[in-house]
Amino acid sequence: MTERPVQTAPSLASRLTAEAIGTFLLVFGGVGTALFASHLADEAGAFAPGVVYLAAATAFGLTVVVGASAFAGVSGAHFNPAVTIGLAAAGRFAWADTWKYIVVQVVGGVIASTFLVLIGLFGPAGWLEAAQNGGFASNGWDSLSPGGFGLPAAIIVEVVLTAVFVIVILGVTHPERGTTLAPLAIGLTLTLIHLISIAVDNTSVNPARSIATALYGGGTALAQLWVFIVFPIVGALLAGFSYRALFETTG
Amino acid sequence: MTERPVQTAPSLASRLTAEAIGTFLLVFGGVGTALFASHLADEAGAFAPGVVYLAAATAFGLTVVVGASAFAGVSGAHFNPAVTIGLAAAGRFAWADTWKYIVVQVVGGVIASTFLVLIGLFGPAGWLEAAQNGGFASNGWDSLSPGGFGLPAAIIVEVVLTAVFVIVILGVTHPERGTTLAPLAIGLTLTLIHLISIAVDNTSVNPARSIATALYGGGTALAQLWVFIVFPIVGALLAGFSYRALFETTG
Amino acid sequence: MTERPVQTAPSLASRLTAEAIGTFLLVFGGVGTALFASHLADEAGAFAPGVVYLAAATAFGLTVVVGASAFAGVSGAHFNPAVTIGLAAAGRFAWADTWKYIVVQVVGGVIASTFLVLIGLFGPAGWLEAAQNGGFASNGWDSLSPGGFGLPAAIIVEVVLTAVFVIVILGVTHPERGTTLAPLAIGLTLTLIHLISIAVDNTSVNPARSIATALYGGGTALAQLWVFIVFPIVGALLAGFSYRALFETTG
Amino acid sequence: MTERPVQTAPSLASRLTAEAIGTFLLVFGGVGTALFASHLADEAGAFAPGVVYLAAATAFGLTVVVGASAFAGVSGAHFNPAVTIGLAAAGRFAWADTWKYIVVQVVGGVIASTFLVLIGLFGPAGWLEAAQNGGFASNGWDSLSPGGFGLPAAIIVEVVLTAVFVIVILGVTHPERGTTLAPLAIGLTLTLIHLISIAVDNTSVNPARSIATALYGGGTALAQLWVFIVFPIVGALLAGFSYRALFETTG
Repeated sequence: MTERPVQTAPSLASRLTAEAIGTFLLVFGGVGTALFASHLADEAGAFAPGVVYLAAATAFGLTVVVGASAFAGVSGAHFNPAVTIGLAAAGRFAWADTWKYIVVQVVGGVIASTFLVLIGLFGPAGWLEAAQNGGFASNGWDSLSPGGFGLPAAIIVEVVLTAVFVIVILGVTHPERGTTLAPLAIGLTLTLIHLISIAVDNTSVNPARSIATALYGGGTALAQLWVFIVFPIVGALLAGFSYRALFETTG
Repeated sequence: MTERPVQTAPSLASRLTAEAIGTFLLVFGGVGTALFASHLADEAGAFAPGVVYLAAATAFGLTVVVGASAFAGVSGAHFNPAVTIGLAAAGRFAWADTWKYIVVQVVGGVIASTFLVLIGLFGPAGWLEAAQNGGFASNGWDSLSPGGFGLPAAIIVEVVLTAVFVIVILGVTHPERGTTLAPLAIGLTLTLIHLISIAVDNTSVNPARSIATALYGGGTALAQLWVFIVFPIVGALLAGFSYRALFETTG
Repeated sequence: MTERPVQTAPSLASRLTAEAIGTFLLVFGGVGTALFASHLADEAGAFAPGVVYLAAATAFGLTVVVGASAFAGVSGAHFNPAVTIGLAAAGRFAWADTWKYIVVQVVGGVIASTFLVLIGLFGPAGWLEAAQNGGFASNGWDSLSPGGFGLPAAIIVEVVLTAVFVIVILGVTHPERGTTLAPLAIGLTLTLIHLISIAVDNTSVNPARSIATALYGGGTALAQLWVFIVFPIVGALLAGFSYRALFETTG
Repeated sequence: MTERPVQTAPSLASRLTAEAIGTFLLVFGGVGTALFASHLADEAGAFAPGVVYLAAATAFGLTVVVGASAFAGVSGAHFNPAVTIGLAAAGRFAWADTWKYIVVQVVGGVIASTFLVLIGLFGPAGWLEAAQNGGFASNGWDSLSPGGFGLPAAIIVEVVLTAVFVIVILGVTHPERGTTLAPLAIGLTLTLIHLISIAVDNTSVNPARSIATALYGGGTALAQLWVFIVFPIVGALLAGFSYRALFETTG
């Protein structure tokens, strides 16, 4: 994601640490904004849904803008198991390393949601219980969908939007056709994805983010979690293989 | 839109695929945000117009920021028949290829709005009917104008703002005076255009976007569609020929 | 604002045309957003001030982001008499050319506000009269201050914020210390300036913008116009001379 | 933060002036937006918390985007004692110069909040008293926390988010792995940090900002000030030493 030559290849330990920190930031920033802004809005009354919607979409995107700016040269800045898998499918990442990245991404995400719970212990009376009863910003459909959408709607948006996400990443980091704006473009794609689909299923496109919140979001969130592991990966695989077939055989 | 030399010229198939995907994203992202956020806002009561206005303007712009970042090196990233025609008028695109680009742009846009209808089938009871009865985010005047503006107001904003859009594109991608910020600048121009004119006619400046929504927006939307095909093209032609006359004969 | 060498110097006619178009866009986009979004918000009831405030601050900044991206290599992209004078004071622009830039900037701005009136003629009944009775987004204090601030408050913010604006422009376009992000940074400075001072005096820092709106904003707006010509220029002169003294004698 | 070689090293006087101006802008812009927008919102009734939250988070970030774009080549653009200390801990800034930077940062911030008081003297009747009784946008917990969070919550977010801030800065300005987007990425990190933590403690991560507001925010703000001096510095030291250990020994 940066066009300057990296003079010394980062060690695997550095790369995994960068992935853990970046995914920590994604969950701490995106989910933290959704939970804390929601409380701020509730205090004020009617502001809640609109302001939280705009703030959370912005925050999720910014976590990637800044995380990718800081760590693209270390780890490639995936912060998302679906992205790692999609890049492998496109031939841009070693299949053998995918499980290592995925493990630290999930660990980073869970540490972040645990920190949010910890902060919540020192919140106003009843805040943490209310946040957890409300699903802790988990992904879901029917009762967990902010707009009341069903399972097929959630499946469509996860497949389509994760595919879009991976295609953009492959394009902006392309060795010949890439851009110095890559970290910004990738992060803003995540903001766009949230603007589109928060109403549908609270937006995953990232199994690590979904796991991190479902752990604290109650039984329904856990029961629905599989959808937000399976379908982002399906979208990423579709995008990775398609991009390679469609755009790497030019000339 | 990228200053690095593209070492192998993309095939026509790659270029047309990129245009279709980019226009798909523009409609899926921009119109999807407007429709889904609107529902989110309605659930909450009074938030609807303000939040949807800010979110839709942001989303339309981001679709172009990220689509242009990803595909500028493949197809030039037009995603809009008026842009293709304006670039041809300015001498930056082959007139002979315009119809090919326009066809895939319209196809990409219609696929996107069809996906939105499909998602709506799994939305809450009555959602899809209400969205279609409300015009499905189509462009229009009088009863279809969010602010109650008439036909001449719609014509003026479409001509002026499409001209602005094409002039900015010609400037930021200029071979001598261009900028690495081009994809960002072009996308943010579209956000600006929406902030100005959503209230007037729901903002087209893009016949592919208008066709995609009018198909599902009912009889009035279809009857008014011609305006959003003709006048964006008029604005683009004015801008293309003027830019060439005004700024390409320096020295 | 672009580091690439411009191979042929733009003609004076090109430069003046670029300044006129850029200032047109600044007024059409910034004031247009404020006026049209305000109506959208009024239709919906209570949304007006907050949404219009965020939208107008964003729109004014984006006009400069995109105008400067498109025209920096042609005219330097001032779009503002105070900026032109500040750059002259800093030794970056020929004093002899300032009056030419200023004339076309004012003309471009007035054409833009005239177009907004023209669109308003085809708006809903009573819209144009209400917009003009409300000051047509003019700058002002006391009754014209959105937050009820007085003349000294307006003077302080115009001097301080125009000085900030000119200092940022001088820094980001500095021949040795400049940045490829210059058009973005300059535009976002204008967004920041609006976020700070819309409540105080509706934000000028640009005499051309103030003249363009006061012409259609009624007697009070015209009577207060001098403040928004004099004090942005005072701030720009302070900044131009100070920057040169403070930051050009390093080493 | 800029990759171009600075041909003449800026003098210490230039560097300290740049730090003072940048910190002035950070406080004037971020706190000014919070205070003035809050009043605008109050006039309108229910808009206050949501709009002010979004505007203040945006404004704080933009102050750093534009200040860093303008002054990175002069002073490094810290504008924050915690950043200066974090960079020293990481080996990127001379420990011997830290106290000089910190002094001018605090002075710049206090001048800014004093200007805001001065403007307030010419505000509507009772505005200044109300702003000061409301804490003058100071940082704090319990009664000063916008969301009602307690001291441990404030400590956690200050340590974690200042550490994130310093890690991002170290990454994006890294001599080998840095990016031309650095000023943008750093500023957007500050916007993200505000989106997350305004509800918790009104967001510091910057002792100069906290000192500047506490001086005018009343007894509780002054009594709680130590937390927003100590814990941002703790987070910055943790980040500075950790980054060096984790990411500078690659290969």
